[in-house]
Amino acid sequence: MPLPEVVYRPIGIIESPFTEPAGMPIQPTGEGAARGRAVLDLEYAPGLADLSGFSHVILLYHFHRSPGPRLTVVPFLDDTPRGVFATRAPARPNPLGLSVVRLVSVTGNVLELDGVDILDGTPLLDVKPYVPAFDSRPDAACGWLEKSLEKARTRRADDRFIGQGEEVEG
Amino acid sequence: MPLPEVVYRPIGIIESPFTEPAGMPIQPTGEGAARGRAVLDLEYAPGLADLSGFSHVILLYHFHRSPGPRLTVVPFLDDTPRGVFATRAPARPNPLGLSVVRLVSVTGNVLELDGVDILDGTPLLDVKPYVPAFDSRPDAACGWLEKSLEKARTRRADDRFIGQGEEVEG
Repeated sequence: MPLPEVVYRPIGIIESPFTEPAGMPIQPTGEGAARGRAVLDLEYAPGLADLSGFSHVILLYHFHRSPGPRLTVVPFLDDTPRGVFATRAPARPNPLGLSVVRLVSVTGNVLELDGVDILDGTPLLDVKPYVPAFDSRPDAACGWLEKSLEKARTRRADDRFIGQGEEVEG
Repeated sequence: MPLPEVVYRPIGIIESPFTEPAGMPIQPTGEGAARGRAVLDLEYAPGLADLSGFSHVILLYHFHRSPGPRLTVVPFLDDTPRGVFATRAPARPNPLGLSVVRLVSVTGNVLELDGVDILDGTPLLDVKPYVPAFDSRPDAACGWLEKSLEKARTRRADDRFIGQGEEVEG
């Protein structure tokens, strides 16, 4: 029996300098990651109480420019086709994006952020406090990405980067 | 203009020893976090290629037992009402759950996992590789939770824990 679909309503919008996928940083830690904002609908402002004590937040968002799912992608950081669940590509069955970003300030319904790697206008689904005890695994092994991380720090998306970080199959 | 809703179809199910919210660990790093499995629909098995080289994965899932959103919750680890976005409570406007868990093995459409803090039968929405360069911030400040983290390591959910980790307002 198939599982029921889930329906979410965005709680707000992410604002960033990145109006097109080309030229975007690949990840928040990449060169060129930028200041940005999360602007929540006013009704959700009370839910942001107590968040300002956290230095980082996890943003969950909808890759609204994902061209649709693929099970195998050629990641930007590699030349080899990889299973999509072993990548952070937007071409996922459920195009959910996740970024850990620095929280600069909270004012009313607006979060000022740093280290943003997200396309301007992206629908925001959730904000969670980043908690090292729960979320930090500094020594985790990262498979095929191990060799490619140096690139992630310095490279930006190129022509293969279609649709908010979408990687094209080789 | 309200943003359009997003619709996701679960890619599989999370299996764990936790059939009821009471007695569950509060987070994957808490005492009692357990072995579990993510069983994807067979069609998604090709998307798991190349994942086995990663020691940890991020699971995104639907808190299917969340009783509905609240903007203020009394977290299990505290006695003070907090804005829901400053907590990991399931009572979120979009009940998205996130756990970093250890990946033990990948066999076909099944991930064997350790450090699972998720209710049995939870609908799985996405699997992402955990990449320290992107996801690890060991020195992040964690606001009101700072004082309470010791409790998270040793305590389990109590009677306040209704509906898959749901905290009741005080």
